[in-house]
Formats: sequence, structure tokens, C-alpha cells
Amino acid sequence: MPLKRILCLSLLIASQAFAQDDLTDAYREPAGRIIGASLTDVEGWEKLEHLTTVIGHRLSGSAQLEQAIDWAFERMEREELHVRKLPVKVPHWVRGDESLRAVAPVERELPILGLGMSVGTPEGGITAPVVSVTSFEELDALTRADVEGKIVLFAVEWMGYGRTVQYRSAGPSRAAALGAVAALTRSATGRSLNTPHTGGLRYDESQPKIPAAAVTVEDAYWMHRLIEQGQEVRVHLEMGARQLPDADSFNIVAEIPGSEMPEEVVVMGGHYDSWDVGQGAHDDGAACMAAWHALTLVHRLGLRPRRTLRVVLWTNEENGLSGGRAYREWVGDDVSRHVAAIEMDGGAERPVGFGVGIRNADGDGSDAVYAEALETLEGIGALLEGIEAGMMQRGGGGADIGPLMQEGVPGLGLRTVGEHYFDWHHTHADTLDKVDPQDFRKAIAMLGVVGYVLADMPTTLPRAAVEPQ
Amino acid sequence: MPLKRILCLSLLIASQAFAQDDLTDAYREPAGRIIGASLTDVEGWEKLEHLTTVIGHRLSGSAQLEQAIDWAFERMEREELHVRKLPVKVPHWVRGDESLRAVAPVERELPILGLGMSVGTPEGGITAPVVSVTSFEELDALTRADVEGKIVLFAVEWMGYGRTVQYRSAGPSRAAALGAVAALTRSATGRSLNTPHTGGLRYDESQPKIPAAAVTVEDAYWMHRLIEQGQEVRVHLEMGARQLPDADSFNIVAEIPGSEMPEEVVVMGGHYDSWDVGQGAHDDGAACMAAWHALTLVHRLGLRPRRTLRVVLWTNEENGLSGGRAYREWVGDDVSRHVAAIEMDGGAERPVGFGVGIRNADGDGSDAVYAEALETLEGIGALLEGIEAGMMQRGGGGADIGPLMQEGVPGLGLRTVGEHYFDWHHTHADTLDKVDPQDFRKAIAMLGVVGYVLADMPTTLPRAAVEPQ
Repeated sequence: MPLKRILCLSLLIASQAFAQDDLTDAYREPAGRIIGASLTDVEGWEKLEHLTTVIGHRLSGSAQLEQAIDWAFERMEREELHVRKLPVKVPHWVRGDESLRAVAPVERELPILGLGMSVGTPEGGITAPVVSVTSFEELDALTRADVEGKIVLFAVEWMGYGRTVQYRSAGPSRAAALGAVAALTRSATGRSLNTPHTGGLRYDESQPKIPAAAVTVEDAYWMHRLIEQGQEVRVHLEMGARQLPDADSFNIVAEIPGSEMPEEVVVMGGHYDSWDVGQGAHDDGAACMAAWHALTLVHRLGLRPRRTLRVVLWTNEENGLSGGRAYREWVGDDVSRHVAAIEMDGGAERPVGFGVGIRNADGDGSDAVYAEALETLEGIGALLEGIEAGMMQRGGGGADIGPLMQEGVPGLGLRTVGEHYFDWHHTHADTLDKVDPQDFRKAIAMLGVVGYVLADMPTTLPRAAVEPQ
Repeated sequence: MPLKRILCLSLLIASQAFAQDDLTDAYREPAGRIIGASLTDVEGWEKLEHLTTVIGHRLSGSAQLEQAIDWAFERMEREELHVRKLPVKVPHWVRGDESLRAVAPVERELPILGLGMSVGTPEGGITAPVVSVTSFEELDALTRADVEGKIVLFAVEWMGYGRTVQYRSAGPSRAAALGAVAALTRSATGRSLNTPHTGGLRYDESQPKIPAAAVTVEDAYWMHRLIEQGQEVRVHLEMGARQLPDADSFNIVAEIPGSEMPEEVVVMGGHYDSWDVGQGAHDDGAACMAAWHALTLVHRLGLRPRRTLRVVLWTNEENGLSGGRAYREWVGDDVSRHVAAIEMDGGAERPVGFGVGIRNADGDGSDAVYAEALETLEGIGALLEGIEAGMMQRGGGGADIGPLMQEGVPGLGLRTVGEHYFDWHHTHADTLDKVDPQDFRKAIAMLGVVGYVLADMPTTLPRAAVEPQ
């Protein structure tokens, strides 16, 4: 390597290190106050306990979601945050009564959770034989005669959430295309204690809409094994699921207005709605309470960033994303003055840092853009080393901030160790007892520090300079 | 240390090593055949699949248990094993319909499993406020006025199975002693995905018998938190549990008669009954199938040990232990010619070896007795090194072989890594998908090798020489 190149590289590294160290040093004092307040806090946990234990799960259209919105709004006002409710129309799907019963070769009740947005069964339910497949390839190898009038069971292996969930999303319509009268899917989880997992399906509008439910991993394998042994498995499915007229809901927007550039905004939060099971603790109550309480603590500490630091509790992520879209519409052209968007929606297990996504509608950011962003973020991450949560990596974002990121807003997604989130997610078991109070305190600290520094620092993160695809 | 003592010790160690090596070498060839046959076997798994998937759970008094007994008996006969059915009267407890509904502060169905042998509720159920305690000490600090007419919830922490299960066993009667009308216990598990765990209770005959059920960990904490916050939690409990007249059942006894000393017996097995949930796969179907199939393979390999090698599938371990007691009665004075008893009843996770217990009605064996037994057993364990399952340790046995061990029969309990057994145990999730086929094959190999060598070797394990207490 020529000497000149080495010198340049050295200077570059030195200047990066210098810039990072500058940023780190400049915010060491306020970061310390935020971290200290978070790690000794009890009120954030009390908020989370109220949300999960007293209010409970919060599906779009439910009384609990609106109760949760009213409670947060009133309490935020008492905390003297600037808070408003943005009206959002949300889908109103209701589960109704549902049951699955094996009628042959033995009679047995099977626990299920109907898939979100599924249609119900006709009055009296459906009784039909089960056809079991372990992949779309196996399904596609069947003829209409094999499937017509039957219930297709997707007894697929666990291939990680992203791949397994395809069968939940697209499976029902692909079964309907061959004449199936209903679909059952293996719950999208790698670990089960006879625990059904709900979650949304996506109907292909060109196919008949058939009712669809998740069975447990145990029962998916049980039916599949019986069928493999040549037995006819017949089941009776009843689902009272139905779609009601869209309901009124709200995004909650709470903020500390910027002291110098209030029109520039750092927005952070999670989705306030949940599926209609468990308590929506990891998905995504803990995130909402952590972001809110981070703002509360920053405010109480008298830290007023130069830009506006805003928390949004988005409504209707699970079955519509109306909240994220409505927020995007509401900010209008001000999206160009959103300097960063932070979402926490991967559970509140032990946090390790953030993933960053910088893109726009044309594609992902260039390596140079990411290098620049990560230089700054690592300077902020260094403030979180003491709680082992300062990792900054390329790749991240969130569903609710997706519409902002499409416009070039740099997006950060909080990352955790990710050990058990998908065991609990969308189940009756997503309850407060699964949240470790110390992990939750760390999440408050992380959102407080990163949100505050991004809203206060002299520069801003680079926006996407898209590389030609 | 005097030279003489050192020399003696060295000689002792050398002679032990020599004896162990002798035993190991003598059985290397047949052990290799048993291990090889087990690790390439498919039929044992097919037996287990039939038992768990086609027959299902097998509570004492149920049609499934008797179906399982008939199926095994007939198949053992076809395998040309010496097999007989020993009649045993067993308790016949039935669960009936059961439900728990929170009626205040919110309405919600809570999954439960009534505790085995519990009485049911009166017609129409019981509606009452819940009193929550986290220990017997907390319960005992309450007065009759605090508890009378209420339902006691044992919202205890997980302290390992042995300690936590005390609340399931003794909690209902201790609550009844203070006037409680029913008891709810936290399921005895450290990990829950909203999974209730059943299991037997023990009524104190001096107290009123009140109905008792296990709630999930999630719901125990949920109710406890609400009560801690000062809310009144009221629930409606309905349980149709009842005790029917004792039913007819059987121990299955299958054996290869000894070629030289047929009156001397090595007995091994597990309990064939299960709770009335899941498939009784880990508890204890896999053990029964492993012991049976080990005998099948030894027989097929033409290995005829000098002593009788016997497999017993004991009935009614879970709620009575009638099978273990009936076997003890049946052998009568021949108990003195039982040279070893082996039980597998800790699930079929990855096996690591055996724990040995040598005692009699007066107490535990002396250090010298254990040293002698372990010397021999380690010689046998060396044959299992290749499957990493040769650990031999002091301390072990099993419920069904307990009555034999009380008479001095050396008892061995198969040991596993014990990572997840209590997650599944007594739940709807104790199903075949939780059993690793390779772990199961190893269990067959272990029981085959240890059973065969103990039945064939020149000496026998020492019986208890009890140390003064």
C-alpha cells in the first residue's frame, strides 16, 4: 500500500475516531443522567403493569385499545408532555367463538387461534377430511380432486419466522385455489407447549375467501402422522370471525418541542394495538411504555433537545398498518424534516443495540451513506456501552416507520438477543411475566439516550443517497 | 500417609480397575451388538409412535390404557417373548368438564387442569373471591376470616419441581383447613407458554375435600398482581371431576427366562399409564417402549442371559402406584432373588447414565456398599461411553421399583440431561414431537446393555448393608 494511501487512511480513521469521541464526550453527562434515571426507575414498570395486567390485550376496534389510548393520553397530559390524539380509522375484525374438534379417527378438542382477518365458517361449521402438506410444493403437486371440499393442513417444519409465516399469510388462498373449504396452519413458532399462535393472513382477492386457523405444533404433527399412516383425519371447524365496519382509533403523539429547531423531529415508538390474546406485553406494549417513559424521564430531567423529540404510539399495526400510514399522511411535507425514526417492535428481551436502515422508494442506501451514519451512531452507541446495549449495525427499521423510511428518513430498530420472542408472540403467553424488569429499564435508557442525542446533536444522520440498482 | 496404607490403596485401585476392565471386556461384544441394533433401529420408534399418536394418553381406568395393554401384550406374544398380564385394581378418577372464568375485575376464560384425584365442584360451580398467597407461611399468617368462603391461589415462585409441587400436593387441604372453598395452584413448571400442568393432590383426610385445579403461570401472576394492586378478583370454577369405582387393569410382564438361574431376575421398565392430557410421550411412554424394545432386540440377537431379564410396564403410577405395589406382592419372597430393578421415569431427553440407590426399609446403603456397586456399574457404564451415556452415580431409583428397593433390591434410575422434562410433564404438550429419535435409540441401547449385563454377569450388585442412623 503506498505511503500516501496509508496516511490518508490513518487520517480518516483518526478524524472518525475524533468525531465519534467528540460526540460521545459531548453527551456523556446527559446520557449518564438518562441511564441513571432509567436504571433506578419504577414508574415505567408500573405503566407497563397497568397496560398489560389491568387493561390487557388491545386489538384494533376493541374497547381495551381505546381505554389504553385514553389512559395514556390523560397521564401524558398530567406529565406535562405536549400530547395529541390523531384520529385513525382502523379495521375492526372480531374473532368470535371458535373451535376445532377432531371427529375421526378419535374425538378430541384441539386448541386453535383463528388467523387475523379470516372469514368465519358458515353457521354450524365445516366438517371435512384433512389433507396434509409440508410445503407449497407438495400442495401444488396435488390436483383439484385431491383437495376440493377438504381442509388443507400446512404441517410445515419451522424454518425461522420469516419463512414459516408465509404459510400463515398466503397458505389459505393457495389452498382455496385448489378448492379447499378451510385451511389450518402450523403455528409460526419453533417452540410450543401446546400453544396456538395467531397472526394475520392475506387473502388473494382472486380466490374464494376460506376460514383459516392456526393449530399448535403438537396437533399439526399429530394429524400429519396419522394421515401419513393412512388414517383419514376428519375435523369439525367453527369460527365466528367477522369483519365489522371500520372503527375510530387514534395515534397518540407526545413530544418535547425542540428548543431551537422545533420543526425538525426525531420520532420514536411502537405500536399500541396487539392481537386479541395474552396481554400484548412483548408485542408491543413494552416498547410503547419504554418509549413513552423515556420521553417522560428526559422531560423530568429538564433536558430539552434542540429538535423536537416525539413519541408516537401507533395504532393498528397488527392488522392494517393504518396508524403508520396515517402518521405519514399527517406529517405531509414535514417528512423531510424528520431527521430520524426509531421503532421498537421485536420484544423487550435483553437489548443489545440498534439496526439502522437508510433507504428511499428507489432502494437501499449506499455503503458510503451507511458508513457515515454508523460513524455517528457508534459515537452514540458508546454511551450505551455501560449497559451493553450500544451495538449499531446496518439493517433495521420497523413496520410503523416504514412509510417514513420510504421517504428517506433514517430508521432505527431496537435489537435484542432475540431468544424467545417468537415463542410468545401472538399467543396467550405474551404476558408481563415474560418481561424482565431490568431488560425493560435498559430499553428505556436506550431510547432516551439515542432519541435525545439524535434530537440535540449538531449534525443529523445522512439521508439515503441511493445506489443505482 | 504410611507407605503400607499407600500400597494397600494402590493395590485396591489396581484390583478395582482390573475388575472393571474385566467386566467391560467380557461384555464388549454383546454390548456392541445391542448398541448397534438400537442405533439402527426403526421399530422401537414405530411402537412409540403407535402408543402416543394412535392410542394417546392413558389414565388409569381409561379405555386407552387397556387398549395400550392389549396392543402391547399381543405384539409381545408375536415377538415370542414370555409375556403375561397381572391383574391390578386401579383408581378410576375422571376429570369431567372443567372451566375457570374470571368474573371480576374483567371477564375472561382461564385455561386450567383440575388436579388428579380432586373432587368436583357442586352443581353450578363455585363463584368466590380469590385470596392469593406466595407461600405456606403467608397462608398460615391468614385467619379463618380472611379465607373462609374464598378460593386460595398459591401464586408461588418456581423453586424446582420438588419444592414447588408441595403446593399442588398439600396446598388444597391446607387451604381447606382455613375454610377455603377451592384451591388454585400455579402450575409446577419453570417455563410456560400458557400451559396448565396437572398432577396428583393428596387430601388430608382430617380436612374437608375441596376442588383444586392448576392455573397457568401466566394467570397465577396475573391474578396475584391484580390482588396486590388492591383489586378484588372473583372467579367462577366448575369441575366435573369424580371418583368412580376401582377399575380393572394389568401390569404387563415380559421376559427372556434365564438360561442358568431363571429364578434370579433383573426387572426393568416404566409406567404405562399417564395423565389424561397430551400423549404421555415423555411421561412415561418412551420409557415403556424403550425397555420393551430393548428386550425385543436382546431376544432377536439371540442373547440369552443367565438370569431372567424382565420388562414390566407398570400400571397406575400417576394416581395410585397400584401397579408397583401389585408387582411387589406378586413376586412375594422372590424379591430376594431380584438382583436389580431399573426404572426410566424422567423423560426421554438425551440420556447420560444411571443413578443407583441401594437401601432397605431401615435406611440408605453404606459408603462401602455404594463403592462396591459403583465399581461394577462403572465397568458396565464403560460399555456405554460410545453413546456418552455411561455415567453412574449414587442416588436413584423410581416410584414403581420403590417397593422392591424397600426390600433391598438395588435400584437404578435412568438419568438424562433434564433440560425440558418439567416443561412438558403432565401437560397437553407431552407429545411425540418432543422426543428426539436419537435420544430414544440411546435409551433402548442403555437399557439393553445394562439389563443384559446385570442379568448375565458372574456376580451381582451388593444389597443394602444399612449403616446405623
